[in-house]
Amino acid sequence: MNNEKIFLYSALKTEIKYKDKLDFALIHATKPCICSALYTKNKLKAAPVILSKERDHNPVQAILVNSSNANACTGQDGHDNAVKLTGLVAKELGITEESVLNASTGVIGVQLPFEKMKSSIPALVKELKAENKQIFSQAIMTTDTYPKFHSVQFNSSQGEYYIEGFAKGSGMIAPDMATLLSFIVTDAPINKEDLDIIFKRAIQKSYNAITIDGDMSTNDSVFILSPILETPLTQDEDLIKFEKALLSLLEKLAIMLVKDGEGATKCVKIAVKEARTEDEARTVSKSIAESLLVKTALFGNDPNWGRIACAAGYSGVDFDPEIITITIEDITLFDRGSVQKFDKQKIEEKVKQSEYTITLDLHQGEGEFTYWTSDISYEYVKINAEYTT
Amino acid sequence: MNNEKIFLYSALKTEIKYKDKLDFALIHATKPCICSALYTKNKLKAAPVILSKERDHNPVQAILVNSSNANACTGQDGHDNAVKLTGLVAKELGITEESVLNASTGVIGVQLPFEKMKSSIPALVKELKAENKQIFSQAIMTTDTYPKFHSVQFNSSQGEYYIEGFAKGSGMIAPDMATLLSFIVTDAPINKEDLDIIFKRAIQKSYNAITIDGDMSTNDSVFILSPILETPLTQDEDLIKFEKALLSLLEKLAIMLVKDGEGATKCVKIAVKEARTEDEARTVSKSIAESLLVKTALFGNDPNWGRIACAAGYSGVDFDPEIITITIEDITLFDRGSVQKFDKQKIEEKVKQSEYTITLDLHQGEGEFTYWTSDISYEYVKINAEYTT
Repeated sequence: MNNEKIFLYSALKTEIKYKDKLDFALIHATKPCICSALYTKNKLKAAPVILSKERDHNPVQAILVNSSNANACTGQDGHDNAVKLTGLVAKELGITEESVLNASTGVIGVQLPFEKMKSSIPALVKELKAENKQIFSQAIMTTDTYPKFHSVQFNSSQGEYYIEGFAKGSGMIAPDMATLLSFIVTDAPINKEDLDIIFKRAIQKSYNAITIDGDMSTNDSVFILSPILETPLTQDEDLIKFEKALLSLLEKLAIMLVKDGEGATKCVKIAVKEARTEDEARTVSKSIAESLLVKTALFGNDPNWGRIACAAGYSGVDFDPEIITITIEDITLFDRGSVQKFDKQKIEEKVKQSEYTITLDLHQGEGEFTYWTSDISYEYVKINAEYTT
Repeated sequence: MNNEKIFLYSALKTEIKYKDKLDFALIHATKPCICSALYTKNKLKAAPVILSKERDHNPVQAILVNSSNANACTGQDGHDNAVKLTGLVAKELGITEESVLNASTGVIGVQLPFEKMKSSIPALVKELKAENKQIFSQAIMTTDTYPKFHSVQFNSSQGEYYIEGFAKGSGMIAPDMATLLSFIVTDAPINKEDLDIIFKRAIQKSYNAITIDGDMSTNDSVFILSPILETPLTQDEDLIKFEKALLSLLEKLAIMLVKDGEGATKCVKIAVKEARTEDEARTVSKSIAESLLVKTALFGNDPNWGRIACAAGYSGVDFDPEIITITIEDITLFDRGSVQKFDKQKIEEKVKQSEYTITLDLHQGEGEFTYWTSDISYEYVKINAEYTT
């Protein structure tokens, strides 16, 4: 809408754990913003999660982020460090402490190198530029192999707006809160109440519909910032357009997260159809998406409909196995209680693709839900056996 | 107690799927037996599970078992095959059809080679011997690398009795019903009501307290047979001794299953202590035991207490992370909110062992529960990517 640059970024190498890695970053909103945020449901919440939760109802003007250290299981010292570092950012920017949020990702149980980080804050603030999106997206990475950024536009009765998003994932990607860290910004002004509802709904169908290893981290946080202006978008039509654009952005980022899952070679869509309810469709698709036997079969290019049926069967949802249909792309493998004859070569071509869709039709109702899942490869085991606390 | 041989076994190579593999087997009880059985809770139940469930309240005299084919997702034909094959066994043995149970394990969605199996039944019956335990335990294997058999004795007011058990596992090992197939026999006469209660309770602490890959199969079945005699053991003291012996047998077999988990190099005990209830302790230990990140850390010899704490944190059980203690063997890594200093070399020695104990103390109450879990190795991925329907 406006050509004014609302969001500025910076990123530095602070040697939080590794030499020569961008690991410390800042988003600064030049206008106070409404913030909606969703956090990990893990009982062990990292210090930055606890701090951001306390502050996110305030007008927000900055988010301080670091990789290489989660500041989790770090007790009172960890909490104090988060308070002090965000306090220094506030002071340097001339804004209130309560308007600065915090996010961390990395190793658990190690204190942040406070002095190093403290002395980098003036430079972080000084380097803030709208053009620094690339280095910002790199600085939030841990075992991600590439930075994840996407941007969309939408038209409203007040003109065109953008929504932009950064995400980092790779390990511990699982609902609820699929992503470790994600930051969404928009120049579209939306009221807090509308933003909260729309954001939660869109996350449910994107970040909460992907799984890599089923583990939920201590640090998962996703934020959206929208500037507080005098004329927010309030018309239903505008909000629908905003939500549609936001969901397309979040889906794109979610799929990027799955594709870059640790050791992942596949991103497979698990579409459950005709369940009794959407909730039941979600439960069944999650059970399939999380099954280790399904995920290793994906890696092995094995059209193993038996494992798919089996994982659906132990999901806890009540259905009649005698009437289900399992399809890979457009080839039906199992239909209403009996195994179908199919062209072996054709199905092999399908499952060799890096992206395809598995559909399970329960023939019970109108509920549907789609999960995206990665495969589990040798590389996944390697990364996670060798990464250490 | 008595020197009479109640239980006879046989096993043959029938080329159900592979050449030169023992794949068809029979247990015959020369006296009618009380049977207690527990089966998979998967909505997709294989034909033999459905059949055995219908018949297990009858006095039981035989269990017909095959490996290499699960007879699951095989529709009406699959059910008919199970009925006909057990019928032929009954005829050959001169017992009622209803006294013959059935269990299968192997590939899903393929019909049994009925004619081959039918023509083998006379030989199966003819070969029955008390001494055939070794070949019987081999015939029920799929990807197991060794047969699993264990035997215990106990003393009662009526003298000494034995309990013997066979098990096969390896993949799809998860609660509820950790084992794919297990057959327990005893010469101790126990009433149906007592046997049901004792068996269920012992299974809960053994086969339902292990996990390899979190998947639950369509065929999981565990049976116990006890002869119907005029003087069953009914005194509390005798039943307590029986239960203790049974649990020790089942624990031993359960640990053998974990150790032989697909690609497993470790069998680690996850002991959760001082939870508010036993149920909560079970939930927390299950969450840790099933975490892929924990299991890859076990494989990597990484004393990653952060992943242990994290998996406890998302178990859904309410606890205060600030008061928990995490110990590996006798070394405390995390205590009441703070990371402990520990001798790195000493802890490395502990986690390099193929068997050790991780203890999580919640300091909340008196509930405790122990899970056994395997690690996830390259080999696990290899086996499961290459095994095919």
